[in-house]
This record gives sequence, C-alpha cells and structure tokens, in this order.
Amino acid sequence: MADKAFRIVRAGPGSRPVMLAIAGDSAAGKTTLTRGLVQALGPDNCVSICVDDYHRYDRAERRDLPFTALHPDCNHLDIMEQHLQLLASGQPILKPVYDHSTGKLARPERVEPNRYIIVEGLLPLHSKLSRACFDVTVFLDPPEEIRRGWKLARDTSARGYSREQVLAELDRRTSESEAHIRPQRSHADIVVRFAPIAVRDDPPGTPLSAELVLRPTIRHPDLGGVLANHRTMHVKLCRDTDGRPVDTLHVHGYVPTEESRSLEKAMWALLDQPGDVPDGLGVLGAEQRSEPLAITQLLLLFHMLDAA
Amino acid sequence: MADKAFRIVRAGPGSRPVMLAIAGDSAAGKTTLTRGLVQALGPDNCVSICVDDYHRYDRAERRDLPFTALHPDCNHLDIMEQHLQLLASGQPILKPVYDHSTGKLARPERVEPNRYIIVEGLLPLHSKLSRACFDVTVFLDPPEEIRRGWKLARDTSARGYSREQVLAELDRRTSESEAHIRPQRSHADIVVRFAPIAVRDDPPGTPLSAELVLRPTIRHPDLGGVLANHRTMHVKLCRDTDGRPVDTLHVHGYVPTEESRSLEKAMWALLDQPGDVPDGLGVLGAEQRSEPLAITQLLLLFHMLDAA
Repeated sequence: MADKAFRIVRAGPGSRPVMLAIAGDSAAGKTTLTRGLVQALGPDNCVSICVDDYHRYDRAERRDLPFTALHPDCNHLDIMEQHLQLLASGQPILKPVYDHSTGKLARPERVEPNRYIIVEGLLPLHSKLSRACFDVTVFLDPPEEIRRGWKLARDTSARGYSREQVLAELDRRTSESEAHIRPQRSHADIVVRFAPIAVRDDPPGTPLSAELVLRPTIRHPDLGGVLANHRTMHVKLCRDTDGRPVDTLHVHGYVPTEESRSLEKAMWALLDQPGDVPDGLGVLGAEQRSEPLAITQLLLLFHMLDAA
Repeated sequence: MADKAFRIVRAGPGSRPVMLAIAGDSAAGKTTLTRGLVQALGPDNCVSICVDDYHRYDRAERRDLPFTALHPDCNHLDIMEQHLQLLASGQPILKPVYDHSTGKLARPERVEPNRYIIVEGLLPLHSKLSRACFDVTVFLDPPEEIRRGWKLARDTSARGYSREQVLAELDRRTSESEAHIRPQRSHADIVVRFAPIAVRDDPPGTPLSAELVLRPTIRHPDLGGVLANHRTMHVKLCRDTDGRPVDTLHVHGYVPTEESRSLEKAMWALLDQPGDVPDGLGVLGAEQRSEPLAITQLLLLFHMLDAA
C-alpha cells in the first residue's frame, strides 16, 4: 500500500497499536532506551521488536558482499515495511530472527500486536511507508566517539568479536552510516543525544547529559511551567542543524536526583495517569542509573500514552 | 482483509500472479503433481511453495501436543493467509521453512511472486480468505490404502521414520484428517483421484487411472469433441458424493501412449499456445511415466494459462 493511503487507513476509526520507532546506528543505545520503556509500560501491554532481524544475509554471507549490514540492500526492507503495516493494523507477524551472538539467521518467531509496539533498529525510518506506520519516531544521535566506545565494549563482550574486528568494522561502516542511517535523523519527531556537556568539567562518573531535539511534528507536553524552577533542565527554542525551528530540552548529567524526580512527577501529572511514575526508568545497567535517561524515557512514555 | 473484499481487489485491474492450490493429505501426491507443472510452465515463470512450512511447532515440540501437524492450531494459518494475500497481490514474502528431513524450523526464505504460483500443502484451502487467493483449486483424493502405501514408502526412506512410527502416526492422524483435511475437498474446483479401476484386472505395473471431478465453479475446456475418438478416456455427467452436479473425466491407466498423446495435443491446441505440448508432464520418478498424470497436469496447465 502507498504510504499516504496507509496513513489514512491508520488515522481511521478502530483501536490500533501505538507504535514508536527508535532508529540509530549500531550501539547508539536503542536497547537501553527500549528496555526502560517496556518495563514502564508493562510487558503485558507492550511488545518490542528489533528490525535488524530483517537482515537478508547472515554474518558468513556478508563477508563476501560489497556492503555491510547497514546497507538497505543487506536487509529485507520491503518485508519490514509489510510487517510494520501488519502490526500497525493490529495483525500478527512471523518475524525473522537474526541471532547476534552467532551471526546466524534462525527460526522466525510469531509476534502478536499489542497496545504498544516499540520498533528499534538500524533502518526503521528508512522509507515513507515505514514511517507512516509510527505514531512517534526517535533517532538516537550520540557523538561518534562515544558510540564507538559503546560498540567496542558490547561487541567484544556479547557478540564474540575481537577489538580489531570491531574497529575495522566501524571503519568499513562509516560511509554507509552517513548514507543510510544518519538521514533518518531528519525524519524523527525527537532526536536524542547523550553526551558530556562541552562547557563543563564534570567529575568522573557523572552520567552523560541528554539533549533532546523536539520537532513540532508531534504535540509535545508543555514543559515551560514544569521546568520553571529547575536550573539543570531547560527548554530552548533554536534552529536544528538543517535550519528548521525546534525546541531543545537539555537535561544535565549532574542534575540532582530530587530535582529530576520532581520533574518526572510533574510530567507524569501532565499525563493524567493513575498511580505513581512507573518503575524501570533510567536504568543503565545492574547498578547504574541515569536521570537524563529517565527523563528521556518519560517523555517518550508521555507520547505513547498520549497517542493511545 | 475480509475474503470478499480481497476477491474484489483480486478481480480488479492490473496483472497479478495466477495462483493454483493443490490441497491434500500427507503423501497424497501433491509434490509429484506440482513438479510436472513447474517443469511445463518453466521454472523462470513459476514459483511453487508448500504451506506445511507454516507449521507452528517443530517435530520435537509436537511430541508433547494433543494434536498433529494436520490440525489448524498446529499451523500459523493466519500468517499463511497473510502471505497468500501478499503473493496474490504481487508482493514478495519471507516464508517460514520447515525442514522435513530434520523436522526442524529453519531460517525463512524470500519468495518473489511470479507469473504462476503453485501452493501445495495440507491446508491451503482451509479458510474463505485463503481460498479467495486462488484462481484454480485442486484437492488430491487418493484411496486411503494407496496413500498409506505412498506415505510409508516416502517417510521411511526420505524422512527418517521407522515403519512402525509411520503407521502409528497415520492412525493418530485419522480423525484430524477427517476433520480438517477432507473438508477442503468440497471447496476444490477439481478433485483428482489416482486409483486402480475397480472393474478391471490390470496387469501388474499398469499405472493408476485418474478420475477427475470437474466442478462447474470454473470454466473447463470443452473436452467432448476432443474425446470423441478415445475409448479409454471419457467425460461423464454425474453427481458428486454430496449430490452436486459435476463432470467426471476418466483417464484409464492402460490408455495407450499414442492415444494419450493425441489427447494432449488436442488439449494443447484448445489453449492456442505456441509450440508443442511442454515437456515434463506425467513424470512419476526417474524412469516411470503415467499418462493419466500427464493428462491431469495438462488440464491444470490449461486452467493456469487460461487464467493468465
């Protein structure tokens, strides 16, 4: 179906899943961001899929190919579009499975649609048709040196690569990342960047700050009143790198927990939801917590609940 | 999409694949029938898939289940319907793969639609929506004792089962076959039965005769003139087992090759196709040939070319 026709169908009556896309390069933090959202929405109301499962070739086959896993031709993107449309209209799919630990394509798995569907991966916002499936779209945009560090740490520990292999792969991917991953940034409603603040010397161990570009393509919560008393978080009107007007929400890594918690409560109140701020936000690892991550997740949660 | 809506879409303008369904129980002869059709249509114009690939559980998982692979609940029939609709509207699919030799579910494979698509398996005609995808539908209906012999021979040689296992499985499946496979017979445009003729004592080695129930649900070729001079083939008006009026085409196993060949030529002429009768029809195995099978395949070929 053409993208416009599908948008019209989606906008019609009937209860359909709320769909959030989280796009970004390898090791940009998609899984970490997703995990907290699933936890907060409740695993019973929510399903998350990774569209890197739509890889057309396994790791061994890719060795002989002139492109990397980032290239559209290396993925069944038309099938991904099909499946996103099916999920967006409330139908189940039989999703392919790429096993990152072995690099092999495995038995597919059935995915039932649910009230909330989070779709993360390298190329979920690649085409007009795929974008038409989403209610909210996010692009993760960490500084390149930070992402490289994350990728090195993960791929050498969890995916069985050597340090040299990861570095070589990162170089091999640079041009394809520029050509195919980064352009999705301009299609996102929200661009999320976790980074140290340039102008400060944070003490070691300070969590990264979050800089969120909020495009007026969706209706964001009115944070003006909520942020009035916060010195470490603020919204600023500015121009994006392409010149388009945007709001930018800064959440500093050194934000005191009590300040962050009060913002979370205020944002939660804006949503008019029962109960307290849900658990599971801001979790980085077994022991680590990041307030900027929690605020980011809460904003996404706001949009998902608001769309429902 | 509802089945009627989909039939209307299919009947609309645009060139869409011609789709043939061949339904029938395990070892009813579906693959043999299909092989000759693919050969005759030309592998470049034609794709065949087996919908038993939509098994929901692998062989090991099925051991603990209260039903067999014949049961609708043992298959992703809704996904099969989705994929049939996609193919019928000219879109590719990522088809699951069930490996009969190992009994495992494997990496899915991409299937591009083609001019002709043959879909064989246990349950392709199970639902209204799946049936709406086809131009021509066939049910294979061999006598049970013949099918059991075929299944024993195949499953003990090619699928790694012992004789006792196959016999036990046949018994286990009887009630589900009655409940889920056989009802598809009444939805087929053509019912094909290969069997010895009851009233004759054919010499050993005589191929099975074919009895084809031709339902007036599609426009069959006018075989009256073509068959006027044939003693071993005839069309008869009669009532089907359910009382509905049908034509029945008999092709006797002892039909002399020259007689069968002249019928094939006459049928081919009815189609107004260039060239001679295509190769590959009637092939049973490496060395064996069956004229009744060749005539059956030619009739199906007639319908596929006619629908195109």
